[in-house]
Amino acid sequence: MSYQAPLRDMRFVLHELFDVSAHCELLGNGLDRELIDGVLEEGARYTGEVVAPLNRNSDEQGATLLNGEVTTPEGFREAYRQYCDNGWASMTGPTEFGGQGFPQMVSASFHEMLMAASLSFRVYSGLTEGAVLALYKHGAPELQRDYLAKMVSGVWSGTMCLTEPQAGTDLALLRTRAEPQADGSYSISGSKIFISGGEQDLSENIVHLVLARLPDAPAGVKGISLFLVPKLIANADGTPGARNSLSCGAIEHKMGIKGASTCVMNFDGATGWLIGQANQGLACMFTMMNDARFQVGLQGLGIAERSCQGALAYARERLQSRALTGAAEPSKAADPIIVHPDVRRMLLTQKTLTEGCRMVSALCARELDLEHGHPEADVRKAASKRAALLIPIVKSFFTDVGQEVSSLGVQVYGGHGYIREWGMEQLMRDSRITQIYEGTNGIQALDLIRRKLLGDGGAELNALISELAAACETAGARAELAGLAETVRQRLLEWRSLTSEVIAACQRDPQEIGATSVDFLQYCSYVLLAGLWVQAAGVAQAKLAAGEGDADFYRAKLASAEFYVKRILPRASMHRESLLGGADCLMGLDAEHFAF
Amino acid sequence: MSYQAPLRDMRFVLHELFDVSAHCELLGNGLDRELIDGVLEEGARYTGEVVAPLNRNSDEQGATLLNGEVTTPEGFREAYRQYCDNGWASMTGPTEFGGQGFPQMVSASFHEMLMAASLSFRVYSGLTEGAVLALYKHGAPELQRDYLAKMVSGVWSGTMCLTEPQAGTDLALLRTRAEPQADGSYSISGSKIFISGGEQDLSENIVHLVLARLPDAPAGVKGISLFLVPKLIANADGTPGARNSLSCGAIEHKMGIKGASTCVMNFDGATGWLIGQANQGLACMFTMMNDARFQVGLQGLGIAERSCQGALAYARERLQSRALTGAAEPSKAADPIIVHPDVRRMLLTQKTLTEGCRMVSALCARELDLEHGHPEADVRKAASKRAALLIPIVKSFFTDVGQEVSSLGVQVYGGHGYIREWGMEQLMRDSRITQIYEGTNGIQALDLIRRKLLGDGGAELNALISELAAACETAGARAELAGLAETVRQRLLEWRSLTSEVIAACQRDPQEIGATSVDFLQYCSYVLLAGLWVQAAGVAQAKLAAGEGDADFYRAKLASAEFYVKRILPRASMHRESLLGGADCLMGLDAEHFAF
Repeated sequence: MSYQAPLRDMRFVLHELFDVSAHCELLGNGLDRELIDGVLEEGARYTGEVVAPLNRNSDEQGATLLNGEVTTPEGFREAYRQYCDNGWASMTGPTEFGGQGFPQMVSASFHEMLMAASLSFRVYSGLTEGAVLALYKHGAPELQRDYLAKMVSGVWSGTMCLTEPQAGTDLALLRTRAEPQADGSYSISGSKIFISGGEQDLSENIVHLVLARLPDAPAGVKGISLFLVPKLIANADGTPGARNSLSCGAIEHKMGIKGASTCVMNFDGATGWLIGQANQGLACMFTMMNDARFQVGLQGLGIAERSCQGALAYARERLQSRALTGAAEPSKAADPIIVHPDVRRMLLTQKTLTEGCRMVSALCARELDLEHGHPEADVRKAASKRAALLIPIVKSFFTDVGQEVSSLGVQVYGGHGYIREWGMEQLMRDSRITQIYEGTNGIQALDLIRRKLLGDGGAELNALISELAAACETAGARAELAGLAETVRQRLLEWRSLTSEVIAACQRDPQEIGATSVDFLQYCSYVLLAGLWVQAAGVAQAKLAAGEGDADFYRAKLASAEFYVKRILPRASMHRESLLGGADCLMGLDAEHFAF
Repeated sequence: MSYQAPLRDMRFVLHELFDVSAHCELLGNGLDRELIDGVLEEGARYTGEVVAPLNRNSDEQGATLLNGEVTTPEGFREAYRQYCDNGWASMTGPTEFGGQGFPQMVSASFHEMLMAASLSFRVYSGLTEGAVLALYKHGAPELQRDYLAKMVSGVWSGTMCLTEPQAGTDLALLRTRAEPQADGSYSISGSKIFISGGEQDLSENIVHLVLARLPDAPAGVKGISLFLVPKLIANADGTPGARNSLSCGAIEHKMGIKGASTCVMNFDGATGWLIGQANQGLACMFTMMNDARFQVGLQGLGIAERSCQGALAYARERLQSRALTGAAEPSKAADPIIVHPDVRRMLLTQKTLTEGCRMVSALCARELDLEHGHPEADVRKAASKRAALLIPIVKSFFTDVGQEVSSLGVQVYGGHGYIREWGMEQLMRDSRITQIYEGTNGIQALDLIRRKLLGDGGAELNALISELAAACETAGARAELAGLAETVRQRLLEWRSLTSEVIAACQRDPQEIGATSVDFLQYCSYVLLAGLWVQAAGVAQAKLAAGEGDADFYRAKLASAEFYVKRILPRASMHRESLLGGADCLMGLDAEHFAF
């Protein structure tokens, strides 16, 4: 199954819906429309021609472990070399360490392509960017000097070592120890599991960021520190030096992303260096958490796009049965299945969820850029709040969409969807992990309510709703969109009042936090997408009115917006009703009586 | 992951919710409560101890093909031998050919167990029962004499050979040819794909039921005939004789049910015999279709149950984080995750959907039994209509539930859910095919609207709604259930009015049939389950009031009913709103403009 980056839609989102050139000017990074489009075209070529063709085999061959060494699937090494040589690795890295400092609003489009082309391949490089960020923000100058440039270039890679067998969601339980040494370094001992790319044959060195406890650390999450623990200790001249006392003990056999090594990493008195302050490890890790969660969201989006492409191609080709209104193509043995309303329902669900998430990804990326790169402190602070609100939605909703859309892709193919060689079922298997790692989607939903919503009494969310309402009003001023905008305006009012109800319920009973969280996040996501679909329709209608650009493209946007609001947005009703069902009906049943 | 048949809940459904003993008396099959319970206990032992332990390995080992011979996974042969020897194969077979004539209302519970224990294993035997039914109803006496007894006993197995590369949903396109021979037999030539158990090493002989075209057959579905084409042609003495000209050309590499061989079957002038009338093959096949679709529904139910069991066990053991209201088990490092409301939401969603489907399965089985076995013709006819209405719901909704529940099972396990050795992700992969085969779930939904709803103007569905409303009123007469019953009563009214709207819309515009079908089927399913949950609550409340039985079990039923109505039933709102969005927003977009 081939993959072609959806450049037309990416340009629509970046240039027409949002104004990425103005954004770049604000950030002062010197990127203009021509340059951005050129980079995305190159990205489309690299991901479509170099990476995407490796994905099917990577699933069959998998990553393998022999004598502590991991072999990645055929072609990954060459593709990774090009990834570094062509500057994709350093795209977002800080310029003082050789990075190109691209804003997320641009790089997110490339990263979406990379996810679509091969999630297994992307896993190896994805965490390096987060590790770079943590080291850049919190690392001592000598550590930065010794490690950052190589990591930015991709010659060395990074990992995040958090999980232990007894400590997954609950990092308070982690046991890995760090003993201070006379030379200022630490001796790290413990076992970490589920370490993506913990061992591989792509990069010259692997720099592990490891959470561990100092001897005198307080219990719980307040006693966790972050350490840099390289596979090969850097020499003063920047070359890789002595082998550290750490090893890959096993790799997991997984449902999907089989080309990515998921490692058990054993640290046996390995040499490490503290990053940031002692016992502040979680705060340091949180620096990279937003980035990592945003990236996982893009995984869902990328896989959804690839499944859309596969399903659409098949639905246009596959001849089966006649249209309900009589033969659409009488000269053929049967009609292409895209004539059937239910197949269209599946395709449009795929399309509007995927394109909807793409709009949200740009919205969120813009805030992440402003948070890190705007010259004014109050703009940075405001953007930080907005990004914090959007991140759990992006991570959780996009990955749910990835799973739903890839499952629809299987369904459109019928029996062939279940056969491995077609590649559709692999997308389902690969995407399933994205709902789990980097904080399960349930945890994202708790984060949204507990920290983001209750943290400021709903102020930031209400501000977002107001902005969406204003944009909705603008779009609705066009007579053609008045009905659509009115439906969404009602939902935005409902959203505001539901938010108050949820806050009140959670303040009354803490169990409501967990009882309403997933439904509330889903509700927010569907209405947020509706707000953006109305804006997209507004842009499309304006272009049509002005007679600019490709009218068919804009008419498709209008049709998609209408489908989304009529057929998908009703899901918000379900989530609202369900969460209003409350906590009592969850908590009443004794744990012993769930089954007999 | 172990499996223990949910005997307590099965007994609740069979004896307390419905009265299976009275049902058996009506059918005159001599089964009483003691005998039924004994059979189910034996079934629980066989499936839990013999079959379930084979399932994990069957996924890793798979079925393999070498020189046209299929080898099934380790242990399948011995388990199949016991399946035949212990009479499980002949459970539902006609008594005059050695069958035990068990009613579906009883056998469905055993078959649910078998699905849960190993779907791959069950695939080999599942289609034999359907083939027996078709041959029993339509086969010539000599064919019955030569083949039926061996098939009933399981010594010989059966397959259904429908699909061809160009003909999946659309059987009108099938090309396999049948040439009449001088001796009254036919020479069958063509290639069939996706043939479950087309070749295997479990049974002594394999009897293929093949759809093919006679030379003079009219085009389309009216020119299809059904043939019996055995792998080994039966001798007059009932022993297997000459090898027929058919072979397994390949087996598919699939997402799941890897232990089941899914075969490409090549018929090269193979000898076959007509079953039923020429060109009436589809009608003959439909005899076994209801049975086959009911069985696929049970696959979804069985897998859902197994995932429930796995998730519940893990949620009770896994210690992670503290309850939102403070430590629930302060002596432990953390609380078991079953204390968290969102984990309970997942578990209760699993539980109430699974138990809900179990109630529907008994309801549907009862009608299937009455259709085939009631002494009075008008009762048989009425039951036939009701079963026809329920079958698409059972096939489609149960399998959607199987997928949702098994995905929730993965989510409860977190990262471990994605690792193969735990077995949770296998359930997701295995169950995914059930939404596709025996008529995709989209096709089931079309069947519900086009044939079942429009076929009688909604009469049968409205009769069902009336019965549910009456039962709801009975349950609601108890003060404790008044609120619950009133919520469901409102939904039943809504269901009736929505049904009228859907019929009117479909009569106005045929595209509405396909545009509303899936949402309508889902709507019907959720409200049907609600009706049964209220009945179950009524039974439980009566037992509690009378002080009979295990109070904890009945209280759990009440809590489950409340959860279902408050937190799951709101899904009906979404499906209603979505389908009322109509067909226009699906059909407006040109096929060329879905993507750019």
